[in-house]
Amino acid sequence: MGTDIIVAPATPPGGAIAVLRLSGEGCVALVQQLWKGKDLRQAAGHTAHVGHVLDNGLLLDEVVATVYRGPRSYTREEVVELSCHGSPYVVQRLLQLLCEAGARLAEPGEFTRRAFLNGAMDLAQAEAVADLIAAESAAAQQLAMQQLRGGVSQGLARLREQLLGFAALLELELDFSEEDVEFADRGQLIALIDNCRQQLQALAGTFSAGNALKGGIPTVIVGKPNAGKSTLLNALLQDSRAIVSDIPGTTRDVIEDRLQLGGYLFRLTDTAGLRAEAADAVEAEGIRRSRERAQLAAIVLHVFDATEEDWAAARAWFSTLELPPALHVIHLANKADRAEDLPVPGEVIALSALHGRGLDELTARLEQHAQALQASGDTLITGQRHHTALIQALQALQELREGLLQGLSGEMVALDLRLALRYIGEITGEVTSDEVLGAIFSKFCIGK
Amino acid sequence: MGTDIIVAPATPPGGAIAVLRLSGEGCVALVQQLWKGKDLRQAAGHTAHVGHVLDNGLLLDEVVATVYRGPRSYTREEVVELSCHGSPYVVQRLLQLLCEAGARLAEPGEFTRRAFLNGAMDLAQAEAVADLIAAESAAAQQLAMQQLRGGVSQGLARLREQLLGFAALLELELDFSEEDVEFADRGQLIALIDNCRQQLQALAGTFSAGNALKGGIPTVIVGKPNAGKSTLLNALLQDSRAIVSDIPGTTRDVIEDRLQLGGYLFRLTDTAGLRAEAADAVEAEGIRRSRERAQLAAIVLHVFDATEEDWAAARAWFSTLELPPALHVIHLANKADRAEDLPVPGEVIALSALHGRGLDELTARLEQHAQALQASGDTLITGQRHHTALIQALQALQELREGLLQGLSGEMVALDLRLALRYIGEITGEVTSDEVLGAIFSKFCIGK
Repeated sequence: MGTDIIVAPATPPGGAIAVLRLSGEGCVALVQQLWKGKDLRQAAGHTAHVGHVLDNGLLLDEVVATVYRGPRSYTREEVVELSCHGSPYVVQRLLQLLCEAGARLAEPGEFTRRAFLNGAMDLAQAEAVADLIAAESAAAQQLAMQQLRGGVSQGLARLREQLLGFAALLELELDFSEEDVEFADRGQLIALIDNCRQQLQALAGTFSAGNALKGGIPTVIVGKPNAGKSTLLNALLQDSRAIVSDIPGTTRDVIEDRLQLGGYLFRLTDTAGLRAEAADAVEAEGIRRSRERAQLAAIVLHVFDATEEDWAAARAWFSTLELPPALHVIHLANKADRAEDLPVPGEVIALSALHGRGLDELTARLEQHAQALQASGDTLITGQRHHTALIQALQALQELREGLLQGLSGEMVALDLRLALRYIGEITGEVTSDEVLGAIFSKFCIGK
Repeated sequence: MGTDIIVAPATPPGGAIAVLRLSGEGCVALVQQLWKGKDLRQAAGHTAHVGHVLDNGLLLDEVVATVYRGPRSYTREEVVELSCHGSPYVVQRLLQLLCEAGARLAEPGEFTRRAFLNGAMDLAQAEAVADLIAAESAAAQQLAMQQLRGGVSQGLARLREQLLGFAALLELELDFSEEDVEFADRGQLIALIDNCRQQLQALAGTFSAGNALKGGIPTVIVGKPNAGKSTLLNALLQDSRAIVSDIPGTTRDVIEDRLQLGGYLFRLTDTAGLRAEAADAVEAEGIRRSRERAQLAAIVLHVFDATEEDWAAARAWFSTLELPPALHVIHLANKADRAEDLPVPGEVIALSALHGRGLDELTARLEQHAQALQASGDTLITGQRHHTALIQALQALQELREGLLQGLSGEMVALDLRLALRYIGEITGEVTSDEVLGAIFSKFCIGK
């Protein structure tokens, strides 16, 4: 990455205004070439200036230029943000003029990449920027904000310190290896490693919760045909406050299977698709597919028709799915309004999907479970890349531990330790490669 | 319109950043309620501040707040622009928090409406803002920019002055009507009116050119079946530099029938749809439809198959369309590569739509015609509303002239004069109603 001047639209087309962002030393002087108005080169940082952009002597647009002086900017470089009218022609022409004047179109995420390379943030924080932009729920926003503020990085920094403390002891031993001294007894070292592993394990263990909260908690509705799965889905979605529904000018995502409850996003799927085939397919095939779906879920809603079967029969059917015991299951005795005297245990919610009965209890239970996910750690890991690095670090520590127990040479032990430190460093970007950075930032949007 | 605080997103969802705009006295203090960072209430105008927005104590987002102090702002009121991460959740929540703190969602165009009501611009300039945002070509952008800079308003102001000069003379006469004096002889008055009418007529006459340049020049391809109309259309469009094609992150409009040439937008339609039916339909029906389309066009491209018929035959077919003589027609002798020795007069372009021959000449002719449209007046009227008002003003002046010739009473003459002045005043908004303003600004986008 050089100090060339990059430019990109930071807003999508079709709005009242469009913002173009430039970064790189000399970008203020570059804009000045097209500028009619106060001399921007004299402008202090963090000031906004109204002026005109000239296109070969003709006025292209009235524009606000906000000037930032490095290092007090997003990228820590000189930055200009041009806020123009959101005309497709004006935006395209302005980009063209800026490129003709010496800027080049930024790659996706290149502004944030520069912020990272210039030390404004570490890699986990940079990734949090993309997560924040993609956030669809309060829970996702809070996780991203926590990571952006350095939550994940601080947790890892503490772990890294402990490992570095261990490395210091190990190197001391290596220095004196001729003399066959031990500066810390093996028992203490192993206790230290185990402590680190425990913390890494805990952090890695938050990934499924963090990932579910970030992208939406996968929730699957299972049950026999005609138990009322689709009715339940519709009843839940009707209640859904679609994220942007009452804000004019914003568009919705497809929401058929997305449910917002108390700041959490649930991704709901029912296995209704099975029903059409169920008549032809054998019963076993339906169960196999339900199981497949449910195994990928964080929450399973098991619906049975209380007018057709009792709790013992329903439980028996559900147990044939053979779901992992750790899965969070909510049992729902549907059509309960027509089966009033049916005895159901406390764990089963008596429901009438059609008439809305029991829905409040269900949504409260869903929210509770989401809150439990959120409370599963001080810091939640949300990135697959981070999870993979943590698992790799854990493996390296495991090998280190075994090496110590087997009395391996200090050099070999140090190798595993360096490996563990490297994996942890990958998360925050202390250790990184162009390839890794490319993969991360290419997923960013243009202009960020 | 009051002094309440309005808020709206000024950018569409789905970008790296989103801009929310607030206007109204006290909007800085309102934002301050949610703000963690430097006290915005102390901020000077035209300054940008990085801080956090708080959502019930939790960090919602890192945001840049740009403060404008009235009257040095777009609306001439106190204005804050909040630039946040473009997350749908963050934008929606931020709007919600701002509304809870006392702002209300702005109606479409309400910021510009306030700018108009507070005297920052007249009505024609306000309308130019919407035109500028919608501009798809350099020509449309230049027309909007000219109008935004007051081009139309200045032309009308000169006319208004002349009419007011005339009104002064007339009122003098009315004051002394008992004495039966004439302060200006009728001949001079009529000459003055005729001069005004001439200018209004000229301005009104620019509407068809202005409207075509603003929205795209309607261009129709006519010709017999198999003359090569569709091939020509495709050849032209292949050459088309779609407006946003090489800018990542921007989307295209449907371009099948839109052609950008030298900063002008052409809306191309061929009458190819007729061909499928032509076999069944009578020849006359095809001609009727071609004529219908062509009459709405500014340019007609007449294509004939030079291997099938000579210029005399083609001209005879074309004349059966009975198009208005003022229509700009370009005749194209297609498949000319296979009819080399065919004599065609200079006005006909020898074309091979398939092999690209003659296309440069055709596009040059199209551009020339667009330039001629642009040069058809110093100021071009582009709004239907303006055109209607000009026609109404002309009618009032016509009646005024007749009244003068017929020796109508001064009171009656003055009525027509007031009418003419009112119609002209409607354009710039000196005379207006809530209804008219509502109709104008409801077509604006949110946040402008």
